[in-house]
Parts: sequence; structure tokens; C-alpha cells
Amino acid sequence: MNNPKNPETQEDMPEIGEALKRAGITNLRTLVKITHDSHRYKFVPNITITVDLTKDKKGVHMSRLIESVTEVVESEAEKLHISIEQLEKRILNRLAEKHPYGRAVIEMKTELVVRKKTPVTKKPTMETHDISVSMISENGKFTKKLRVDVVGNTVCPHAMQMVGKPHIQRAVGILEIEAEYSNDITLEEMIDCVERSFSSEVYTLLKSQDEAYVIEKMFKNPKFVEDVCRGIIYRAKKTFKGCKINAKVISQESIHRHDVIAEGEAVV
Amino acid sequence: MNNPKNPETQEDMPEIGEALKRAGITNLRTLVKITHDSHRYKFVPNITITVDLTKDKKGVHMSRLIESVTEVVESEAEKLHISIEQLEKRILNRLAEKHPYGRAVIEMKTELVVRKKTPVTKKPTMETHDISVSMISENGKFTKKLRVDVVGNTVCPHAMQMVGKPHIQRAVGILEIEAEYSNDITLEEMIDCVERSFSSEVYTLLKSQDEAYVIEKMFKNPKFVEDVCRGIIYRAKKTFKGCKINAKVISQESIHRHDVIAEGEAVV
Amino acid sequence: MNNPKNPETQEDMPEIGEALKRAGITNLRTLVKITHDSHRYKFVPNITITVDLTKDKKGVHMSRLIESVTEVVESEAEKLHISIEQLEKRILNRLAEKHPYGRAVIEMKTELVVRKKTPVTKKPTMETHDISVSMISENGKFTKKLRVDVVGNTVCPHAMQMVGKPHIQRAVGILEIEAEYSNDITLEEMIDCVERSFSSEVYTLLKSQDEAYVIEKMFKNPKFVEDVCRGIIYRAKKTFKGCKINAKVISQESIHRHDVIAEGEAVV
Amino acid sequence: MNNPKNPETQEDMPEIGEALKRAGITNLRTLVKITHDSHRYKFVPNITITVDLTKDKKGVHMSRLIESVTEVVESEAEKLHISIEQLEKRILNRLAEKHPYGRAVIEMKTELVVRKKTPVTKKPTMETHDISVSMISENGKFTKKLRVDVVGNTVCPHAMQMVGKPHIQRAVGILEIEAEYSNDITLEEMIDCVERSFSSEVYTLLKSQDEAYVIEKMFKNPKFVEDVCRGIIYRAKKTFKGCKINAKVISQESIHRHDVIAEGEAVV
Repeated sequence: MNNPKNPETQEDMPEIGEALKRAGITNLRTLVKITHDSHRYKFVPNITITVDLTKDKKGVHMSRLIESVTEVVESEAEKLHISIEQLEKRILNRLAEKHPYGRAVIEMKTELVVRKKTPVTKKPTMETHDISVSMISENGKFTKKLRVDVVGNTVCPHAMQMVGKPHIQRAVGILEIEAEYSNDITLEEMIDCVERSFSSEVYTLLKSQDEAYVIEKMFKNPKFVEDVCRGIIYRAKKTFKGCKINAKVISQESIHRHDVIAEGEAVV
Repeated sequence: MNNPKNPETQEDMPEIGEALKRAGITNLRTLVKITHDSHRYKFVPNITITVDLTKDKKGVHMSRLIESVTEVVESEAEKLHISIEQLEKRILNRLAEKHPYGRAVIEMKTELVVRKKTPVTKKPTMETHDISVSMISENGKFTKKLRVDVVGNTVCPHAMQMVGKPHIQRAVGILEIEAEYSNDITLEEMIDCVERSFSSEVYTLLKSQDEAYVIEKMFKNPKFVEDVCRGIIYRAKKTFKGCKINAKVISQESIHRHDVIAEGEAVV
Repeated sequence: MNNPKNPETQEDMPEIGEALKRAGITNLRTLVKITHDSHRYKFVPNITITVDLTKDKKGVHMSRLIESVTEVVESEAEKLHISIEQLEKRILNRLAEKHPYGRAVIEMKTELVVRKKTPVTKKPTMETHDISVSMISENGKFTKKLRVDVVGNTVCPHAMQMVGKPHIQRAVGILEIEAEYSNDITLEEMIDCVERSFSSEVYTLLKSQDEAYVIEKMFKNPKFVEDVCRGIIYRAKKTFKGCKINAKVISQESIHRHDVIAEGEAVV
Repeated sequence: MNNPKNPETQEDMPEIGEALKRAGITNLRTLVKITHDSHRYKFVPNITITVDLTKDKKGVHMSRLIESVTEVVESEAEKLHISIEQLEKRILNRLAEKHPYGRAVIEMKTELVVRKKTPVTKKPTMETHDISVSMISENGKFTKKLRVDVVGNTVCPHAMQMVGKPHIQRAVGILEIEAEYSNDITLEEMIDCVERSFSSEVYTLLKSQDEAYVIEKMFKNPKFVEDVCRGIIYRAKKTFKGCKINAKVISQESIHRHDVIAEGEAVV
């Protein structure tokens, strides 16, 4: 400890010699820039970045985690093409230069806006989905976890069979995929797998004719929350390879105060 | 300042001479006991308790607010009948002895469980509603604010007229009433005003025949979010007198990602 | 009803003749573009847009509210300078052409990223604040409500006086200002009013020397939650004119499970 | 299908033959009664109850999950002693009679109020903690997951070493334990493991002398979020046997907008 004014307390031996799985920063919100098809996108994700900690180090140098994020965001922003995944990989590489780790993880949670046309009147509409992109660096290998939360609906097939009329409600479908870094999986394809599995996809804008179309589609496709969950797994298995799939659907029942839930997994 | 070990910093003149509307404790969760029809109820509400602050006092003695709550809860618990409203009034009276104020407010947020029978099979079911009871003491006068958040549904009348089939979704109806302390208003009556205004009330338990009944009722009562809001105001105006009414309904649209909302007010 | 396939159900006379204060869309998330100092900004706010409803109209044409937002966002995006306030005013003007109203309100909630330097090492850091910009159109007059939620801290002066050591905690300061449309108030100035009122402002990045500076500043500025609230009101009164001010501070006490709160108002 | 009015749609073959890990009810809030040391406790937990679903059954009979909960709550309430764990085991046994499953899980999330004395003035105070008790039934074997979320604080040892003054903040420590049903683990012991690991435990009520005591204790025990996490693991390993331990601590930094986090695991 040569400089008493700036002790490296984090390097001290901890009182309790336990290795920790992860330590770091969470709920960090900072400006991130990516470039996609020569369009520049700026957004403010909620970021978590952590490293593992050996049993002989008291703490993580937290400011180095922050700097790894902000420095890479600044220096890479001018690139012609950089995705969230590429950015995260570079942040974890930069972090390795600043702070030794065995395993590091970064997650960015934000939203993705998809431009669509309404189904009948073909008016432009923008659909916003919650997404999360995580990158794990371990033993020089990069693995990613991608997640989309997509809004849709369920139309009860039991009620349809029983009284010829269904109860209908909003549902949220969540698809998570774990794969190697190089596995080319787009969030748009993931969103598509979820949307196609509902009784109908939903739209931000619906003129009367579009609304009629969506309702007719819902009534033709009665689905339990379990059916939607199986549909997501089925479509994800067909679309993606070499990955782990987790699908979860929560249906906000219109005839109950509680929600119903279904969850399933697959490895392809 | 006779006792240097326990300075009354709160009594100091503040640097900036501004009177404050309220200062105190929020997100306090403690055990509360009430007695209703000789049944003892214990619950853990989320409590906010505040007083106004004159421009010549630096701060509120926060521990006296806490003590007013806990002492009254302990001493009043053995009473044969004490409601949340009565308990809150006594807390504000106790507080006046401990801490001078011009205006004090206490709010308790908790849930109310209502026992019902399912509509056809007559099975017992318990329905849980979020509620809030606030008491305001000002110039020796007590005023209360009561709020219920009740889950139900909307069935779109426009879609019903247009294609003979509706979209249906969960909706939340919120009724707030402001009245003098002595005005006899029950939370159960308030919940009833909201429930009757939906396309149908909902149930925690529904056997198949009950479900059929609820669905038939929904299809016979298509309602916009605006209709539900007007229904709540209409029923509250008929049921309660000498009070201010605020009704708000949020419908979690099954064909959209966003919600629709309606709000109205009345004085009776 | 000439076209049975597209009935204007919303224009029907409602069963219950109550005028509503507001009805519309909430939790709408769509892409918005503004231009500031020739920089283009894209963001995805959470939007609420409502109109009042007379007692002779059954419902609001909800899709016209959506279209007013999306059409103005598209058409105005190429402008050399357009702020959130200007965009909102144009949306309410566009809405007036599509849907009659007496009073309309639009709110956009998003975050504002402010670039700063760390206090000692002068490293670049980005500070993210929650903000909300609302516009009200009533009788041809536009009024706005601006809100910033800023993170800082409180350092207890009572503990400091009593034991020479304080308890310290994160606090959130909220400043809301209501003013005429033309009143030139920046969110950055509002954030500044709040930040200067804490025991110290906080930073996303702090190297050791910066951290030492912030801690010394905190210890020199012990403040109750009431002091912070008064500071915000004092600074807002000095900075802004012709407006209503509301300040609220919530301190996440480090020695308690609950929070403490202070709130005050002023008109200048 | 003998009774066309009540088809067993759930028993149909699903279109997509995927087995699901779990399907059922979530966010169910109903009244639950337990008896502990001859005291009766009533509370309204948030309940999730799910079963796995084979690939040849379209859906779960959701009302049977609800009935298993409510029937057992009613019939067992008069017992002299029944804990949440015992109640959950009986619910899963009752469910097995109503609905076949390979694996069923029930979780109840609620709060636990612990009576304490303030450290110096010995005044009574009540401390409320979020807790969760889950039971898993699989192949006739019962496993449980217990979780406590406890509020405390961290006092930065790096700042203490560097400038002789710390930054201090609220922190939340979360301890999760997975064990066999018969393993006797109390939530109170788990809360104790977490509380002792902070720089100081916190109290709902603190008179000035108590506050002085807590502050002195905090300054004598500077701890990183990593130190608190290690402390919880160390204490849990000493206290409990034959179980899996997971500890997570989130510190709401008073000098930053973001939080810091540490997480570790152990098997004993």
C-alpha cells in the first residue's frame, strides 16, 4: 500500500474465504449506440455486468466495469455495423484487460420496435417488444442468452366447445434462447415464433376493418396458454438449431383475478 | 441544547424558510389488528403517515410517527370493535399529543378478502381486492379517503356490432371516495359498485357451469371502458351521499399492446 | 348506420349520461424522433393520450388517438428543430382535426441522458434521469407539466450532531412544474435544481479520487429529507417564473426498512 | 364426450405433442390460515401452483388447482399446529387425488413480522420481511425452497480506508435454501443469517440512543456487498445442513444511480 490516499481495498484478503459466482453492477442505465444496415440507433438499456470473484480477493473494482461499458460504447459507435451482441463481446474483452475474471456476464435490457402494416387497411404501425441480450465469457468462449417478451392473446377452447363463445384475454409470451456467440439468431425471428403462436398477433393501430380481421382470426384459433407455449417451442425448434429453448406464457384471464401460466423447454 | 448527546436537531431553524405540505414515513409495513363483528383480523398494511411542517422547524421527529402507529395498534387491539378508520383516527389523535401538526394524514394499503359463492354451482370462493383507507386530520376535523381496486372485464360493443363477435379483456376498476369521518361508507359497497359495472364480475373459482354463466353474461353486456367508468359513477352516486367520487378504469386490451383508460368524477 | 359492417358505435348515446374527464390510451410505447441542435434523437417513451368525453357520446375513437401520435411523429421528424413539447402540441392539434375535444392531454415518459465530467479526474460520465413531459390543450390554450426524477442522497444532520457520524442513504428528488406552453423551462435546469439540493450529486462513474471528493462533500452537507425538499423549492423559485412548483423527496433510509418523505409546493 | 355441455377439452390430444415442464395458476391471492404455538395466523399470500403436463393432454384443469388450495386451507385451519410447509404438502397431496401429475410445485409469497426490542432503549419494535415458501412434489418425494428478503446496509470499506469516512446505503440480502421436506429450517434463522452479515441490522423504531448505537455499529463494520454475501453464505453453512444455499445481496449505492450486486452458492 504505497499510496495511503488510494488503498486497493478490493485486493485485500477477505475475512471469509468464499469464492463468489458473480459481483458487479446492476440497474445501470447509460446511452448505447449500435449501427445496423448503416442506420445508427441510440438507446438507454438497463445493464447488468458482473464477474466471478476468487476467495482471496475482497471485492470487485466496480468502476472498471463501468469504464469497460462506456469506453467501448464511445469507441465502437462509429463502426459501420455493430450489433448489441458484438458490442457486448467487445465490452467483455475490454473488461478482461482491466479486471481479471474467470467468467463475466453482461446483460442489456431494452425494447425493439418493429415496423409492420395493419392486416387489412395496410396502414403503417410500430410494434414495441421488450428484449434482453446477454453475453457470457468463460474460458475464452462466448455464449449468449436472448430473450423476447411479446404481447398477444389466448381464446379459451374449452369455453368455445362448451358454450360456443370464448373468454379472451391478453397474454405475454416469453422466449429465451441460449446459444454460442456465432449462432446466427435474430430477435425478429424470435418475436415471430411467439407472435404466430397466439390466437392472434396484436397491433398498436387497428382501423375497424383490421379489428374485424383480428377478431375473426382469434375466434378461428382458440388456444389454451399451454397451446401457445407448445406453439412457441415447436416454431423455435424448427427455426433455430444448436441451442437451448425456454418458452413461458402468462395469460391474464378475463374471468379470473389470477393469471394462468405454462412453461416448457427444449434442446435442439 | 442541554444534552449534547441528544440534540433536538429537528427543532432547529432550517436554512431555507419554506413551510412543507407534508413530511413523514412511507412504505412502513407493520402488523395491524382490527376487530370486526367480534372477529380479530391481523394484517400487514403498507403505511404512509405524514404531518405538515412550519417554516421554522428543520424536521419532523420521525420516530414519534412510528410510535403513534405501534402504540395505538397495541393498546386498541383488545377492543370489541375497531375498524381501520377508527384505528387511524386514534393514531392521528395520539400523534397530536406527541408531535404538533396543523394537518396530518395516514394511509393504510392492504387487501380485503370477500367470501362469495360461485354463480351456478354455489361453491365457496374467496375474492381478494386491493384497498386503501386514508384519514386526514385538519383543524380538529377528520376526513377520509377510501379506495378499492377491483378486477373485472370489458367486452367490446363496437366489435360486437361490427362482426357479431367481441374482443374481451381483463379490466381494473378503481373507485375513490372522499368523505367526512362520520359518513358510513363500507369498502364492500364500494367493491360492489365497481363489480356490477363490468361486463361481468370475475371469480377465483369457476367450475365449468359457472364459467358458462360468466361467459353468457359477458356476451350479453358488451361495455367500453367508458361504459364501465360511467356505471361506477352512476352506482356510487346512488349509493353514497355527501362525498366526492372518482372512478378510473383501465382495460388491458386483448387486441393491442397498450391499455385503454377512462376517468370521471362526481360530487354528491 | 348506413354501413352495417362498420358501425360508429362510439357515436351512440350512452346508457348512462355522465360526462367523463378523460378517456383514451395509456402505456402506449412507440418510436418518437426529435431534433435538438441538429442532432436527431430517437426514443421509445411510454405515452398516455386522452380526451374528455361529453355525456352524449358512448366512446372515444381510440385509433384516432394512435394515428395522431404516429402521423405527427412521421411527418415532423425531418424538421431541423423539434422538441418533445413542440411535438406534443402538434399531436394535440392534429388530434383536434380527427376527434373533437374540449380538453386533451398527452404525456410522454422517457429518460434523459446528461453528459458530465467526474468531479476530480474529469473523466466523461453519462447520467440518466427519468423525465416526463405532458401537454394539455384546453379552450385553445396549451399548458405543460414537466417532471424530473433525480437520484441523490441524504446525510442525517441529527446523527451528525449527536454522534459525529451520520447515516447516509440514496434519495430520489422529484420536481414537477406546471406552466404555460411558451414558458421556456428546460429539463436540464430542473435536474440541476434537484441535484444541487442533495447532500451531494451522484455519478455513474467515480474513480477513487472522485469518490473521495463526493464523500467529503456529503459529510460537509448533512441534510434531512425536509432540507432537500426545501432546497429544491428554493432553487426552482429562483430559476423559474410564472409557474406552479411541486417538490417531493423520498429517502431510502439505511437504518430503517421504511422510507422517509417530504413534499412542498410553491407558485411563482 | 357424453355431456356436450361440459366437454373435457383439457383431455384432448394437443395439436403439438410437446410435454410441458409446468402449467397452472399464478398471482392467486387467497386467505390462508396457519397455527403456530397455538396462535392462529391469517394472511393473503401470492400463490403459484403448477403441474407438469404430458404431451398427450391438451391442458390442465385449472379449477382443480384452485380447489386443492381452498379446500385444504378450510379443512386444515382448525388443526392445533400447521405450518406453511405442512399446508403446502397437504395441498399437493390433495391435488394428486384431483389431477394426476409427475411433478407439482406450490409457492406462497408473503411477509413475516418479527418482534424485537430496540438495541438500547429496549422499546418493542416489529420488523417485516418478505418471505417465500415453495414445496415440490416429485416421484412421491417432497423438496422445499425457502427464501427471505432482508433489508440492511453496507458501509464502504474502501472509502473508510481512503478518506476515513464511508458512503453508506440500504442493501437487501436474499437467502434461498433448497432442502428435503423433513429438514428443519426456520425462516427466523434464515433472517438471522442475513441480518448478522450486514454492517448493521436495521430497525423500524429507533429512538436517538438506539440510532447512535446502530451508527456506531455501522462505522465499526465496513462491508462491501461482496463481504455481506460471503457472510450470509458462511453463516448459512454453519447453521444449516443437507441443503443448497444461494445468497444474493443488492446494495443501493448512495454515491451512484446504479446498484451493486454479489451472488454466491454453497452445498452443505
